[in-house]
Amino acid sequence: MVNNQEAASVLQKVRQANPLVHNITNVVVTNFTANGLLALGASPVMAYAKEEVADMAKIAGALVLNIGTLHPEEVEAMLIAGKAANEAGVPVVFDPVGAGATPYRTETARNIAAAVKLSVIRGNAAEIANVIGETWKIKGVDAGEGSGDVVALAEKAAAQLQTVVAITGKDDVVTDGKTTYVIHNGHPLLTKVTGTGCLLTSVIGAFAAVEQDVLKAAAAALISYGVAAEIAAGEAGEQGLGSFQIAFLNALSRIGAEEIGRYGRIEQKG
Amino acid sequence: MVNNQEAASVLQKVRQANPLVHNITNVVVTNFTANGLLALGASPVMAYAKEEVADMAKIAGALVLNIGTLHPEEVEAMLIAGKAANEAGVPVVFDPVGAGATPYRTETARNIAAAVKLSVIRGNAAEIANVIGETWKIKGVDAGEGSGDVVALAEKAAAQLQTVVAITGKDDVVTDGKTTYVIHNGHPLLTKVTGTGCLLTSVIGAFAAVEQDVLKAAAAALISYGVAAEIAAGEAGEQGLGSFQIAFLNALSRIGAEEIGRYGRIEQKG
Amino acid sequence: MVNNQEAASVLQKVRQANPLVHNITNVVVTNFTANGLLALGASPVMAYAKEEVADMAKIAGALVLNIGTLHPEEVEAMLIAGKAANEAGVPVVFDPVGAGATPYRTETARNIAAAVKLSVIRGNAAEIANVIGETWKIKGVDAGEGSGDVVALAEKAAAQLQTVVAITGKDDVVTDGKTTYVIHNGHPLLTKVTGTGCLLTSVIGAFAAVEQDVLKAAAAALISYGVAAEIAAGEAGEQGLGSFQIAFLNALSRIGAEEIGRYGRIEQKG
Repeated sequence: MVNNQEAASVLQKVRQANPLVHNITNVVVTNFTANGLLALGASPVMAYAKEEVADMAKIAGALVLNIGTLHPEEVEAMLIAGKAANEAGVPVVFDPVGAGATPYRTETARNIAAAVKLSVIRGNAAEIANVIGETWKIKGVDAGEGSGDVVALAEKAAAQLQTVVAITGKDDVVTDGKTTYVIHNGHPLLTKVTGTGCLLTSVIGAFAAVEQDVLKAAAAALISYGVAAEIAAGEAGEQGLGSFQIAFLNALSRIGAEEIGRYGRIEQKG
Repeated sequence: MVNNQEAASVLQKVRQANPLVHNITNVVVTNFTANGLLALGASPVMAYAKEEVADMAKIAGALVLNIGTLHPEEVEAMLIAGKAANEAGVPVVFDPVGAGATPYRTETARNIAAAVKLSVIRGNAAEIANVIGETWKIKGVDAGEGSGDVVALAEKAAAQLQTVVAITGKDDVVTDGKTTYVIHNGHPLLTKVTGTGCLLTSVIGAFAAVEQDVLKAAAAALISYGVAAEIAAGEAGEQGLGSFQIAFLNALSRIGAEEIGRYGRIEQKG
Repeated sequence: MVNNQEAASVLQKVRQANPLVHNITNVVVTNFTANGLLALGASPVMAYAKEEVADMAKIAGALVLNIGTLHPEEVEAMLIAGKAANEAGVPVVFDPVGAGATPYRTETARNIAAAVKLSVIRGNAAEIANVIGETWKIKGVDAGEGSGDVVALAEKAAAQLQTVVAITGKDDVVTDGKTTYVIHNGHPLLTKVTGTGCLLTSVIGAFAAVEQDVLKAAAAALISYGVAAEIAAGEAGEQGLGSFQIAFLNALSRIGAEEIGRYGRIEQKG
């Protein structure tokens, strides 16, 4: 059972080990992702060229693949990097941004999930559903209004994809198909700042770089991230979205065992 | 005659409808554009690959094309997306960033304006002049110091390009070639934050997604945007450009009928 | 001997001349670089397509090349732009981000340094060492923990590359191989915000655009930048990394002769 104390301890390991997280991510969120990882204590690197992604992935603590602004050259680089990471035993975390929005995204997400052994896949319910061929409403790259059973969806995806699955939304669900946690942290303002889902995926990468129990790493990342969002909303939510974004980076850089212990709300299902 | 009340009502429609705005834009402004659209209540998506832009453009409420960091592959995607939007009746808004700065930009801007039926084109005076073959001084991607008659230029461009034209600067001019408005809002600090012109173009897209009268949509967007800038300058202008940028995102997320009613200054010409 | 007064005078020239700085830089830092240059008073432009980089570089006050997210098409554009700048007498400033992290980066950095006549190269010690074939530990794109003699490394690199070399770290070293300065400004929080090194390289470009004595231009840029960081850390360092980043942009937009005179700490070596 992952609890707040264990979550805080994984965060502490990130701060101590300062793991290199190799991101192949979309052009909208690169800066925010790098600053968010730095704030938490990780060491981000972005590298995209197929001439170097294998070399970079092998020396990284984790590889994060994100198809938010995918194109064929980048997808090719993702596959090269993913396979190199697999060979080197580097955990790979995948964010299928917008799967279901266009056929190209859906197909690419499925191809990556099939070709690369993933440690974690993180998305909203619609994205995860589309990766495994379930129906779920989607709008652009944002979650649709589906009212399906998210826990059941996550567990089905974990069994089918043979990986830890994190589905984020009002509550977050994370499962390896056997053990399932629901995390009641986070804040609706996160949906109003671009890249908060993408950064979370990279944060899961940072946690997976220092904690071999991938389910625990992912759960710890979700708790820490959600608590930081709540703190930021309390400090700056009323000022507007610009201030919330800055307060969130502040919270990521300051959050520790005390805040996680006080505000973390994780529950084991079943 | 578009007035403040009507402008506020279009903004309100954006907040209610939460329209999907598909942006093919430059790498400098992606994050700021997405956050600005989210702050105003729209739903941004960036998609660039020619494998998916037609599918995305068709389901969007508006398509925004911006050549700020253009390259041949992206231009090809813009043409595919533009034609798909035209077929689906989705309004297309175009930002000819830096037209006139290099021959490649000028030619590309003209090609796009010729190949795609535009609902609105927005630029500074130099950019619009260069798209229609008029002479105007330009420096990099920023407006030159031309002292021509901006209203006459806008009306000539509207007639020639058969679209609504918005020229922004100290005052903003928007016209469909028959009816022309001058908007006396905005703030000089906008010129010191990168991407404020690009975001404005995307905001016009969001407004055009919910208001079929394109001239009214564009005028309402210009008023709302200019008022938000004035509020931000009042709140944070003296602290410096970082704080102004954050205050501007805050203002976009909070602005409503009250502020627009109090500060909006639109005037009909002729 | 460059002193604080001269440094402030070069900054003043940037504010007056508003030089166009053409950046071919990485996708992580484009927005921050543009906003940082605007804050200091320069006029940023990003242009990448080989169809236009020569035209843009020729009309710029400086060209900045940064390989942070390099790929073959971009490298080709950098070489075209660099040669055009050389022909036009436009200073070229180079940031070999991550040289040493992968063979592709190291080779590319060396190729650019060999093919383009550089006015300044700026990097951390590991990057500069790798460009000239010295051994230095590196992690991702961040500096390693090398304990070598940075002054000796800088002077060796200046002699070998025939350019001004700026090595930044706890202290900054800048040299043309004959005269060497050490600047004791800056703040550790700079290492926790992505792109602060990249922006500094572009700032050196802005200073080199208005000051023909390249060593003086680079030294003045390092002092100004470091003083701005100290002011920002004093104002917002305790709030967290988000606030520090904003305070840093504020400081760049407000800093002047008074602050540089009070806080600048430059020392001539040897």
